[in-house]
Amino acid sequence: MLPEITQKLLAAKQEKGMSFVDLEKAVGRDEVWIAAVFYRQASASQAEAEKILSAIGLPTTLAPELTECPLKGLGPVVPTDPLIYRFYEIMQVYGMPLKSVIHEKFGDGIMSAIDFTLDVEKEEDPKGDRVKVIMSGKFLPYKKW
Amino acid sequence: MLPEITQKLLAAKQEKGMSFVDLEKAVGRDEVWIAAVFYRQASASQAEAEKILSAIGLPTTLAPELTECPLKGLGPVVPTDPLIYRFYEIMQVYGMPLKSVIHEKFGDGIMSAIDFTLDVEKEEDPKGDRVKVIMSGKFLPYKKW
Amino acid sequence: MLPEITQKLLAAKQEKGMSFVDLEKAVGRDEVWIAAVFYRQASASQAEAEKILSAIGLPTTLAPELTECPLKGLGPVVPTDPLIYRFYEIMQVYGMPLKSVIHEKFGDGIMSAIDFTLDVEKEEDPKGDRVKVIMSGKFLPYKKW
Amino acid sequence: MLPEITQKLLAAKQEKGMSFVDLEKAVGRDEVWIAAVFYRQASASQAEAEKILSAIGLPTTLAPELTECPLKGLGPVVPTDPLIYRFYEIMQVYGMPLKSVIHEKFGDGIMSAIDFTLDVEKEEDPKGDRVKVIMSGKFLPYKKW
Amino acid sequence: MLPEITQKLLAAKQEKGMSFVDLEKAVGRDEVWIAAVFYRQASASQAEAEKILSAIGLPTTLAPELTECPLKGLGPVVPTDPLIYRFYEIMQVYGMPLKSVIHEKFGDGIMSAIDFTLDVEKEEDPKGDRVKVIMSGKFLPYKKW
Amino acid sequence: MLPEITQKLLAAKQEKGMSFVDLEKAVGRDEVWIAAVFYRQASASQAEAEKILSAIGLPTTLAPELTECPLKGLGPVVPTDPLIYRFYEIMQVYGMPLKSVIHEKFGDGIMSAIDFTLDVEKEEDPKGDRVKVIMSGKFLPYKKW
Amino acid sequence: MLPEITQKLLAAKQEKGMSFVDLEKAVGRDEVWIAAVFYRQASASQAEAEKILSAIGLPTTLAPELTECPLKGLGPVVPTDPLIYRFYEIMQVYGMPLKSVIHEKFGDGIMSAIDFTLDVEKEEDPKGDRVKVIMSGKFLPYKKW
Amino acid sequence: MLPEITQKLLAAKQEKGMSFVDLEKAVGRDEVWIAAVFYRQASASQAEAEKILSAIGLPTTLAPELTECPLKGLGPVVPTDPLIYRFYEIMQVYGMPLKSVIHEKFGDGIMSAIDFTLDVEKEEDPKGDRVKVIMSGKFLPYKKW
Amino acid sequence: MLPEITQKLLAAKQEKGMSFVDLEKAVGRDEVWIAAVFYRQASASQAEAEKILSAIGLPTTLAPELTECPLKGLGPVVPTDPLIYRFYEIMQVYGMPLKSVIHEKFGDGIMSAIDFTLDVEKEEDPKGDRVKVIMSGKFLPYKKW
Amino acid sequence: MLPEITQKLLAAKQEKGMSFVDLEKAVGRDEVWIAAVFYRQASASQAEAEKILSAIGLPTTLAPELTECPLKGLGPVVPTDPLIYRFYEIMQVYGMPLKSVIHEKFGDGIMSAIDFTLDVEKEEDPKGDRVKVIMSGKFLPYKKW
Repeated sequence: MLPEITQKLLAAKQEKGMSFVDLEKAVGRDEVWIAAVFYRQASASQAEAEKILSAIGLPTTLAPELTECPLKGLGPVVPTDPLIYRFYEIMQVYGMPLKSVIHEKFGDGIMSAIDFTLDVEKEEDPKGDRVKVIMSGKFLPYKKW
Repeated sequence: MLPEITQKLLAAKQEKGMSFVDLEKAVGRDEVWIAAVFYRQASASQAEAEKILSAIGLPTTLAPELTECPLKGLGPVVPTDPLIYRFYEIMQVYGMPLKSVIHEKFGDGIMSAIDFTLDVEKEEDPKGDRVKVIMSGKFLPYKKW
Repeated sequence: MLPEITQKLLAAKQEKGMSFVDLEKAVGRDEVWIAAVFYRQASASQAEAEKILSAIGLPTTLAPELTECPLKGLGPVVPTDPLIYRFYEIMQVYGMPLKSVIHEKFGDGIMSAIDFTLDVEKEEDPKGDRVKVIMSGKFLPYKKW
Repeated sequence: MLPEITQKLLAAKQEKGMSFVDLEKAVGRDEVWIAAVFYRQASASQAEAEKILSAIGLPTTLAPELTECPLKGLGPVVPTDPLIYRFYEIMQVYGMPLKSVIHEKFGDGIMSAIDFTLDVEKEEDPKGDRVKVIMSGKFLPYKKW
Repeated sequence: MLPEITQKLLAAKQEKGMSFVDLEKAVGRDEVWIAAVFYRQASASQAEAEKILSAIGLPTTLAPELTECPLKGLGPVVPTDPLIYRFYEIMQVYGMPLKSVIHEKFGDGIMSAIDFTLDVEKEEDPKGDRVKVIMSGKFLPYKKW
Repeated sequence: MLPEITQKLLAAKQEKGMSFVDLEKAVGRDEVWIAAVFYRQASASQAEAEKILSAIGLPTTLAPELTECPLKGLGPVVPTDPLIYRFYEIMQVYGMPLKSVIHEKFGDGIMSAIDFTLDVEKEEDPKGDRVKVIMSGKFLPYKKW
Repeated sequence: MLPEITQKLLAAKQEKGMSFVDLEKAVGRDEVWIAAVFYRQASASQAEAEKILSAIGLPTTLAPELTECPLKGLGPVVPTDPLIYRFYEIMQVYGMPLKSVIHEKFGDGIMSAIDFTLDVEKEEDPKGDRVKVIMSGKFLPYKKW
Repeated sequence: MLPEITQKLLAAKQEKGMSFVDLEKAVGRDEVWIAAVFYRQASASQAEAEKILSAIGLPTTLAPELTECPLKGLGPVVPTDPLIYRFYEIMQVYGMPLKSVIHEKFGDGIMSAIDFTLDVEKEEDPKGDRVKVIMSGKFLPYKKW
Repeated sequence: MLPEITQKLLAAKQEKGMSFVDLEKAVGRDEVWIAAVFYRQASASQAEAEKILSAIGLPTTLAPELTECPLKGLGPVVPTDPLIYRFYEIMQVYGMPLKSVIHEKFGDGIMSAIDFTLDVEKEEDPKGDRVKVIMSGKFLPYKKW
Repeated sequence: MLPEITQKLLAAKQEKGMSFVDLEKAVGRDEVWIAAVFYRQASASQAEAEKILSAIGLPTTLAPELTECPLKGLGPVVPTDPLIYRFYEIMQVYGMPLKSVIHEKFGDGIMSAIDFTLDVEKEEDPKGDRVKVIMSGKFLPYKKW
């Protein structure tokens, strides 16, 4: 199911015992973005590709496989994996409220999913640690013409 | 399409010229959560329901319609509204990377969509304001038995 | 199926015998965008809404119904109307080639559907007139972080 | 996922360091149409096939694979790739307005997707370059009988 | 489910005891095309609309409802009515063979569904009458550019 | 995607430079039906299978693969190939009119898709050749019991 | 959800305290077929319609609503009612074995669902009564041409 | 598509020139049930598996592949094979009538698809042979608690 | 969305301030089963219907609406309500393991969903109360014939 | 269809003649949870993985394949296997009643499918053994913010 290059990258990373946080330090890019390159949802520059490959001990001749623009998306309309589904459910439940609040704050338009960053942080909490996901996307107002 | 009570609430709010931020101050709850009550995706306590209704000039006898547990969810499998779709697309593109990073940081489990908060902030930016969406959900490790 | 306000607008326009091109002159916005306001896919400013309503002889008190941010999209996953389907088919057939050519010209990113205009022109042709559809959207490169 | 011949063509083109624009010059056909032949959505003549193959250094014995009539279409009902999805979204949002305007200009009928051309241009713009997509299809009026 | 105007037309026709063949004579158009106007899948000229309405005893003031360009299509992806389903099944079974034979006879292109006529005839046969359906559509070769 | 035997048959036919019309002469069956055997949508008798195989230069030991009853149907719910889709669209648009006319002519029942023949003819026309598709199916009245 | 005429028929039948078996005696047709007329899946003759209506005490002026050819089918792709689903499941499980056995007994063709009868019987059994469903459909061999 | 063991069984049976009726005699089970074992929709006992394998000349060491509990079901939501589809259509058309009649005869409950038998018989008929399908399932009343 | 009778029952119950547990005492049936009658997924006897109606202060003339056999099922293929979805997810995740364990313990067959009871209990727990759901269904072995 | 590691595990377990109950004793975890590890729906600790592998005679070097966090879920939207489908049907029929009862007992929230256990027991019963399925999930109240 995963592209061959993704499997190669994941295996090499596991072999090296490196986490995505380690790669963040080695490459100078966020761990989520690097994971997106692994899963072929983002495209790296030649330099970034080489840094990633070197860090996990793969030949840099594989770089072109990380620099080309991928065909993106998971595919299945409704994801069955519970972790991924929760984000889908959040939109099912909070989608309309979110739309109302964003329109009230910004007018008619959308949050870009392209000029966009996504961070994951661990919030330690005695009642149970929390996953903090921070999304930041440029607001794009609908153009009139 | 929207439930009758939602339409009543939205019309009264518009009549009063109140924003969800104004309601945040009046009710003491976050604007997104209040909007979720409006769209019948969240249930208020009797006191919260009365505060919301008073703030927008509706009779508090409507409170039971805001306190009962709603049947949640938007319904359509793939949302066609561009603003809502972008969040769906984010999961199509960054779902697997996010899963990998969360598992690496927390082990096998999920981010709760129930013990969960969602905030929207406006980040002013000379190159174009940004929408910041902050999700915080308790990490729930898979139980073994 | 069409929202009530859309039906009212279309009926008044027909009564007045006005075309969307006539409205283009009266409002100072493109006919396609005005039609998008009619079908509640775009939101007008107060001034634009009043111009549209006056032009077709409806009271300007309806303006708020044209200024609020609509829930957008046609809904059906595969449109059955032959005219609309052809555009869907064009993407089925030319989607991948288009993606390749755009990536080659611009790098990894997308054409915005928000900072976007759409024009329709009639090209007279002795072998049969042609429909010319011109789309212009800002290129948005994928952000790295 | 891509047909074997498509993979061969793309690899040879990359090897040669040729863009679709370069092929446009070598073959005398538009870059988008040539890309459509690559992705097996269009069929070339024997002469065109040979020019394409020679230009990217593949044996002309492969020509029959480019001249036969392909089974067309992407397949997935709703594309998940963000670039391709935007065109789908454009029809979700502007489909009905477009239909109204075309009917007003031409009467009952459709824009052909067969007697049809598609061009992509880069519009340089200091506020960010724009993707211009120009579609031109013969208007086909519904026949009565 | 059927549009209101369709119901009115069918009721008036039944009242008058007229068949579509009778209307064919009165209007000078084929019975199938007239039925398509009834079901709002085809648009009549003002003169045709008036002839149809007069023939079944409805006021000609309803003509605009027959002249406007309809939103076409049945909607359900797979029809459940057995008569309609059989045509769908014919394409499931004979679609690829038909495609091969048409390409062999005409080259790459399609049979138009717009510049198209459809006739139904009753073939009397001692072993059981047969339904003969004759489709005639202009061949449209794929344009190259 | 195509069954292995179909690929073998198509390759051998291409090698021999034979069209389905040539096979029609060699086998004494219609070209569409022969194509249906190729695509494994119809089953041949032993004699027919041997004639087909001999005509295209394949060993007659393959006959059993053409005589067994196939699992029929294309599979995808909505075909994306434009040529095949047009027939699907014809039913979307003309399905209900066709149903009305057939019921008026024959009573409640269906046109058989089993006791059924399908022919394709080329109608030469100075304004562009036309594809003529003739379907003939036994009318089957609904049994009452 | 049920057509208005179906609701009227069911209510009148309940009022009269009649079962479908009682109607079988009054009308001279099988109870399942009569139920199919009730649910507008089968069309009655004028005489049959009048017998049904008289038996349950409804005016015979409603007869045309039972004689016209209905648009057939339940609609939902996968039925959720457990009783109806079981028949669907039977085909999921025994569909291929049934196909093999029928082809072995009859050759390539199908069991008609039109020249078809369906009976339900109650088999008394000390271990629990059994539902016996007997289907009888004409075998239709695939025509060759 | 068919499981490997199914292909092996079908090939061996064809080699031996045995029909399912012949196997019925050799194994002492109904031909439909034996076909269900072939298609891995039913599980045999060790003794039954050995009888089946011996009868068609396969080694009895394959028995475990016929005794394990299979993952059942055809898969596709709406079957495209015409023979199998007819049974699906029968439920689309006669599902509600059948439900009414069964409830009238038995009360609220279902016909079991597990404590269930299915027989196919050939009814010779001068007007064309008929396929008789007899289903017998235990009636299961809904439990109250 | 909910049937009218369900809305009436729920409103009367709320008016009376009764819980389903209170009804369990009044009717002598489990609260879940009574709720199933409310939502028209189960059918009551005349006596049970009258007890339910009396308990919540509705006229017993409504009893027939609770005794007839309902058309069962929620409808949407994948439920979007988070509480209901979790049970769907449990089957996505634990469906195959459950199937293996049940087959190992019982042989080939299923757990009946008809001869079936469902109970909900509250397990108090200092780390957070737990929902205990107990299902008990008769094991039905697959019949051989 | 099953992952390679699942096939290996199932084959080794069959070879050893061990049941999941035997593994429960060897590993000290419930048989359902162990089956979930087999089907790669749950992740084991290094120690648990080694115990499982040793118990069925596989090398412990396979442990990493059992400790990594799997992509969970069965995939098909509506399961066709009768045993698994019954649980889906239970939610179709008893989903809304269950939701009502849980909300009444616990307030607005859900039963966790993560902090969750699932047990299967065999209840011997002279009228036929019963399958008892016990689910226990932590109640998670919706957070307000």
